[in-house]
Amino acid sequence: MISHAELRQFPVLDDCLQLGGITLTRLAERVGRTPFYAYERNHIQLRVGLLRRVLPSSVHVHYAIKANPMPALVQMMASLVDGFDVASAAEMKTALDAGMPPARVSFAGPGKSNAELRSAVAAGVVLHLESEDEMERAARSGELLGITPRVAVRVNPEFELKYAGMKMAGGARQFGVDAERVPAMLRKLGRLALDFQGFHLFCGAQNLSAKAICEAQRLSVELALRLAQHAPAPLRLLNIGGGFGVPYFPGERALDLTAVAEGLHDTVQALAAASPETQLILELGRYLVAEGGVYVCRVLERKLSHGRVFVITDGGLHHHLAASGNFGQVIRKNYPVAVGNRMHAAPREVVTVVGPLCTPLDMLADSMELARVEPGDYVVVFQSGAYGLTASPTAFLGHPPPLEVLV
Amino acid sequence: MISHAELRQFPVLDDCLQLGGITLTRLAERVGRTPFYAYERNHIQLRVGLLRRVLPSSVHVHYAIKANPMPALVQMMASLVDGFDVASAAEMKTALDAGMPPARVSFAGPGKSNAELRSAVAAGVVLHLESEDEMERAARSGELLGITPRVAVRVNPEFELKYAGMKMAGGARQFGVDAERVPAMLRKLGRLALDFQGFHLFCGAQNLSAKAICEAQRLSVELALRLAQHAPAPLRLLNIGGGFGVPYFPGERALDLTAVAEGLHDTVQALAAASPETQLILELGRYLVAEGGVYVCRVLERKLSHGRVFVITDGGLHHHLAASGNFGQVIRKNYPVAVGNRMHAAPREVVTVVGPLCTPLDMLADSMELARVEPGDYVVVFQSGAYGLTASPTAFLGHPPPLEVLV
Repeated sequence: MISHAELRQFPVLDDCLQLGGITLTRLAERVGRTPFYAYERNHIQLRVGLLRRVLPSSVHVHYAIKANPMPALVQMMASLVDGFDVASAAEMKTALDAGMPPARVSFAGPGKSNAELRSAVAAGVVLHLESEDEMERAARSGELLGITPRVAVRVNPEFELKYAGMKMAGGARQFGVDAERVPAMLRKLGRLALDFQGFHLFCGAQNLSAKAICEAQRLSVELALRLAQHAPAPLRLLNIGGGFGVPYFPGERALDLTAVAEGLHDTVQALAAASPETQLILELGRYLVAEGGVYVCRVLERKLSHGRVFVITDGGLHHHLAASGNFGQVIRKNYPVAVGNRMHAAPREVVTVVGPLCTPLDMLADSMELARVEPGDYVVVFQSGAYGLTASPTAFLGHPPPLEVLV
Repeated sequence: MISHAELRQFPVLDDCLQLGGITLTRLAERVGRTPFYAYERNHIQLRVGLLRRVLPSSVHVHYAIKANPMPALVQMMASLVDGFDVASAAEMKTALDAGMPPARVSFAGPGKSNAELRSAVAAGVVLHLESEDEMERAARSGELLGITPRVAVRVNPEFELKYAGMKMAGGARQFGVDAERVPAMLRKLGRLALDFQGFHLFCGAQNLSAKAICEAQRLSVELALRLAQHAPAPLRLLNIGGGFGVPYFPGERALDLTAVAEGLHDTVQALAAASPETQLILELGRYLVAEGGVYVCRVLERKLSHGRVFVITDGGLHHHLAASGNFGQVIRKNYPVAVGNRMHAAPREVVTVVGPLCTPLDMLADSMELARVEPGDYVVVFQSGAYGLTASPTAFLGHPPPLEVLV
């Protein structure tokens, strides 16, 4: 049978999961109600620490707030990473509230409104220009405010990120400017009152192949160096995106970070040789926070229907859309799920874990082997620290939203 | 080419869509910002009126609030339908706030918490019991409060609703009690302090086949009459669900309501002959409100990438998950989309309509022929009155939530 990757990020004491050094049952009492998301400081700090140790020291690590914008978590991140990437005015506010200097905040997204552009220019963050039109609108905002906007050009390269869970480059895309059109755009940019900082290339997300990531990084730097010859100013920033994946589904295995670091080492050397002033940036969201977070819900009932056991919980699709299989997945697969207060207990049984909603889509685990549960037990969905709460339709059917804790 | 069903629910004046007698461009000014959802009173009233005219007059029509819980809309519905179906304590509050008498409100859902059961018993609504366990918990709530709970038993029949977009009966299900186990449950129910009202059978949703719906209705009534022989009290209520679909995707055509009514006529007669005291209830959500609603967003930019035209709007997946193809769909298909202020204008072009989010999932129309747009134009997604706003991850990436208007 194809299994989930082993999850060892949290200790187990007396068969009960520990989060932030707190027994899950006690944490649930502290939170006061279920369902909730819990994110562990320790795991996230270790993850960033590991990256720092393994990656070339000159590389800057940015946190992409969209992965998890919980303010307390972003505040913690502000002291761990070198910058933030934001995708809306609200995320920009969260970034600046956390004390990140504006020059270390970049704002990307293919549909920036004039109001957002103006707000970003006023803040002094780096605008990742996704089109020629946006460049002109940004320049107009700058004129209006008497501020020269800091800008980088987001490039849509010809190559794609192989094996990525989501491809965001190669071929026709809504993201960035086709590489072949960038030289002309840069000529125009030089005539506008814009402070050119560099390039942004984001090829895809959720990739577990070190080889594919390294190849995309190498190609990204090569392309950026070629395009920089047309730039109106030296290449100061080069954000080559992220794409580092985490294992969610049976058969998936953790990304080989050492292999990524080795490949990146060569790429960093090539960049340093050709353009020593350029700061290389990796933009990571999921990879920093996904594995440090869990979603916890409570068993309301065991139910038997035609010989199949349904575990009915107070959590579900409305809180964790991705785990229900309705967020970009073609075929539904199970996230790693366990009974948090019976981690290794026998007996075990094959059950289907569902939520309280009146829809068959509301499923957290389909025919999965778990410890035999009773009402009151805690069902835990792992790998839930990124694209969980904010990527879910919390208002659906009017149940209370889940709480979030950072422990 | 396979086309969308023709949409004639809203008039077009000077090539601009009219909603509630208001030109879309003016309505957008009134709302004050985009994106927004607009639901038309007139269309919804006509739809309920049509049902009243066509269906046997003895049949009660309930509105399932989960389809669209906007308070103003529910308030309007209170005077149009015979009852409300709710799926959470919050929906129950909305129903009662709208003035619906508790005896005409039913509360279904496979994961009712003890707090919800208690609240429902205190309110006096009809609890649709989804399991034996829930029956016992409801009885305990009643004892605690000194109130005899009104209950109906939700039955999971052996048969399924053929061709349904979502099947919710037949085989192992989290919904209701397997039909074969209902007689034993009813014996137990008779010994508890519970006021037995009847049965609930909900076989599936979003069905466009009149024949399949009629067959499921006939089978539902037959099964209910057989099970009623084991009931501790006469069968007063029989809710046979809904399942009436609306055409969303190319190739789908409107449900033949006349054919449904004809089939239902025979079913109603059979029920009246066998159990004249029984009130037959249809529970409809989507069918009442989906076609009367639209989602309106604004064009921010036209963008060309490798010869393909992307129309970038301020709306998207975060507001309308179903239209992006990420809510229960295996293969993404386009909802009907038009340019609201250029309904029939030439020239036309094939474009891809996307939103502002940094994900390739954020797509409202893939390679669709529309009038050629300019920034400021309004993109309208039709068939959006049900499972729109509340079924969407509005917090994703932190953009402002859409507004809702009833016009």
